[in-house]
Amino acid sequence: MPAQNLQIDGKRLWDDLMATAQIGATAKGGICRLTLTDLDAQVRGWFKAQCEALGATVTIDELGNMFARRPGKNANAALPPIAMGSHLDTQPTGGKFDGTLGVLAALEALRTLHRAGYETNAPIEVVNWTNEEGARFAPPMLASGVFAGVFTPEYAYARTDRDGKTFGDELRRIGYRGSEKAGAHKLSGLFELHIEQGPILEAEDRMIGIVQGVQGMRWYEVTVTGQAGHTGATPMHLRKNALLGAARLIERIDAIARAHSPDAVGTVGRIENRPNSPNVIPGEVFFTVDFRHPDDAVLDAMEAKLGSAYLDCLRPLDLNFTARRIWNAPAVKFAPALIECVRIGAQQAGLSSRDMISGAGHDAAYIARVAPTTMIFVPCRDGISHNEAEFTTPDQCTAGAQVLLNAVLEFDRRLG
Amino acid sequence: MPAQNLQIDGKRLWDDLMATAQIGATAKGGICRLTLTDLDAQVRGWFKAQCEALGATVTIDELGNMFARRPGKNANAALPPIAMGSHLDTQPTGGKFDGTLGVLAALEALRTLHRAGYETNAPIEVVNWTNEEGARFAPPMLASGVFAGVFTPEYAYARTDRDGKTFGDELRRIGYRGSEKAGAHKLSGLFELHIEQGPILEAEDRMIGIVQGVQGMRWYEVTVTGQAGHTGATPMHLRKNALLGAARLIERIDAIARAHSPDAVGTVGRIENRPNSPNVIPGEVFFTVDFRHPDDAVLDAMEAKLGSAYLDCLRPLDLNFTARRIWNAPAVKFAPALIECVRIGAQQAGLSSRDMISGAGHDAAYIARVAPTTMIFVPCRDGISHNEAEFTTPDQCTAGAQVLLNAVLEFDRRLG
Repeated sequence: MPAQNLQIDGKRLWDDLMATAQIGATAKGGICRLTLTDLDAQVRGWFKAQCEALGATVTIDELGNMFARRPGKNANAALPPIAMGSHLDTQPTGGKFDGTLGVLAALEALRTLHRAGYETNAPIEVVNWTNEEGARFAPPMLASGVFAGVFTPEYAYARTDRDGKTFGDELRRIGYRGSEKAGAHKLSGLFELHIEQGPILEAEDRMIGIVQGVQGMRWYEVTVTGQAGHTGATPMHLRKNALLGAARLIERIDAIARAHSPDAVGTVGRIENRPNSPNVIPGEVFFTVDFRHPDDAVLDAMEAKLGSAYLDCLRPLDLNFTARRIWNAPAVKFAPALIECVRIGAQQAGLSSRDMISGAGHDAAYIARVAPTTMIFVPCRDGISHNEAEFTTPDQCTAGAQVLLNAVLEFDRRLG
Repeated sequence: MPAQNLQIDGKRLWDDLMATAQIGATAKGGICRLTLTDLDAQVRGWFKAQCEALGATVTIDELGNMFARRPGKNANAALPPIAMGSHLDTQPTGGKFDGTLGVLAALEALRTLHRAGYETNAPIEVVNWTNEEGARFAPPMLASGVFAGVFTPEYAYARTDRDGKTFGDELRRIGYRGSEKAGAHKLSGLFELHIEQGPILEAEDRMIGIVQGVQGMRWYEVTVTGQAGHTGATPMHLRKNALLGAARLIERIDAIARAHSPDAVGTVGRIENRPNSPNVIPGEVFFTVDFRHPDDAVLDAMEAKLGSAYLDCLRPLDLNFTARRIWNAPAVKFAPALIECVRIGAQQAGLSSRDMISGAGHDAAYIARVAPTTMIFVPCRDGISHNEAEFTTPDQCTAGAQVLLNAVLEFDRRLG
């Protein structure tokens, strides 16, 4: 294989990670930088300035997705860019690495090309996708989903946060509603570097995960309705306690996932109890369900069990409910040609690796529908993610960025 | 028994109930008038003006408790007043009657005395107690508790709401932090009219509940701590899901109450899940527990079972917890002399009645520690309370107010 002598500057990458971590820094060392907030605008501004300082041209599409382009050879002007990137938004108590590493490693790769004066065949782009997390506006991967034709822009604009603000209004308010039509931006390929968000690489002492695809995921929203009443004066046998029904469903959802071990997961992550006062019997409870498995047929079976659980748990308590699936992401298989470039990139860098399936959703899972796509994973300590304690070492960050650059250059050579 | 020819004006009382229900009116016909909000200040101002229009003198103590006094005979100037009243604050989705009926019926009784020019032996007062509900600042009955020496003023002032605002600051902000020391106000007796908040009077078709006392109540605050993590990438067997632990405890708390049927009740009314995002495994859950029973020994047994439940439910899930009892209100027995006055007052009015124990806490339960006290109940439809659908008919409200006036006058005659 050809040698690869362009080297990532790991210290510069780490400094960028620590500098941007101050934008939305939490007391416990994490980041709270919800999409389309003032903090999101601040980190976007920082990112744009960094790219422009390298001579890149930044385009913003109608969903706020950002593309910073370094041109390729003039002879290949018609060649669509090779993109690399991830997202800069975080969970409410997110960590410093998650999507941020993927964007900043791509930025560092771009810097490395720029400083070396290396001329690529295709243009190279660094991408920041809007609202990957879905923590403020469900569903997640909203803007990459629009880019891939999964959602319409109108659907995205109408999503509301808990305060009733819309995605569209907030996007305009922070100044990132661009004019380019989402998805009009053609790509030769997309490479997304990300922390694993699970414990496997660390447990097996491997540096690089060569990601083959993403497991299927389904989200549901459930509202259980009973009857609010006074906790002291309402005898137990006359109650319609919505929270008791929700508690039984939380137990059942956990059991459904365990029944399909080891690959299935099932979680109630968000719950809103109403009126939520110590001396009022809960009259209404809203909650979300997240089911994932690499096989869509297993997800069908889990969904059927969930349908039975509503009736089993709620009827004996005289409770009503509404439930709907709000999101269905089929299992994804990444592009073999790009996977091969990652494998070669890891070998060039002399790093240990393993093939794996992503347990988490990523923008790459949607982009795979419209462009050749793959992902690169690096370890995170104790598999902890979406958590202020999330941590990846400087060496691991550097390794990921190096494999990202190597894979992009390998793919670029093949386009030449 | 002596005839009682002073008659409550039921229409005037109903008009007052409907007028004040506009202060904090909700779309579903209830009231959201949390203590020490601007809406609370508004209804307090209305109440003060109404009392002063009858020539009453309004005193406000250091906890914001309001006392509107109509003088008695000069010869008895040293006689402490006979008080009647309740509270004007509500739950977040409260009803129109709850504490408001007790204050406005007392106001109407005062009006009736005023218009008739009736001279009582003792001064007569209408009371509005601050923060009976505890919905914004736990624990409930906070200001009557200070009045009765259960809490210090400093404890009350330091209570915080969910936004971190203190009771003391908010009391001053709305202009109701008075100068009279709480509890300095001596009372010959207190009569509190209230809706039953349970289904018994309606089921037995009785108009008046002659309340003998209040069941014992204990409140607990529990925090379950696990480990937040990514819902997709964290296998089920590596999770520490705080919400799953909380769900098991909710089930157990319900079972503990049912094991002591028919008189025990147990409820988790408030729950806060953190970080509360659909794709994050819950890392921490806070919730409240409310246990009630007429016998303190049974509450001891329920509390012991709760202590075991923490360990049984949380250890197998590798979860930690903190739990503490934040409130312990022993069972209360009301004053026989005042109960007798209520019984005579109901007979004078020709109304059906039954003796009963209050399932709910009330300001009267604390005041019983420092003055002769009792309560009068009227029915509420379907036993529903702490709910926007709460309803008591105009006839039931009138009946309660008439028995309140009759009982106060019977007690006043005995003081003469």
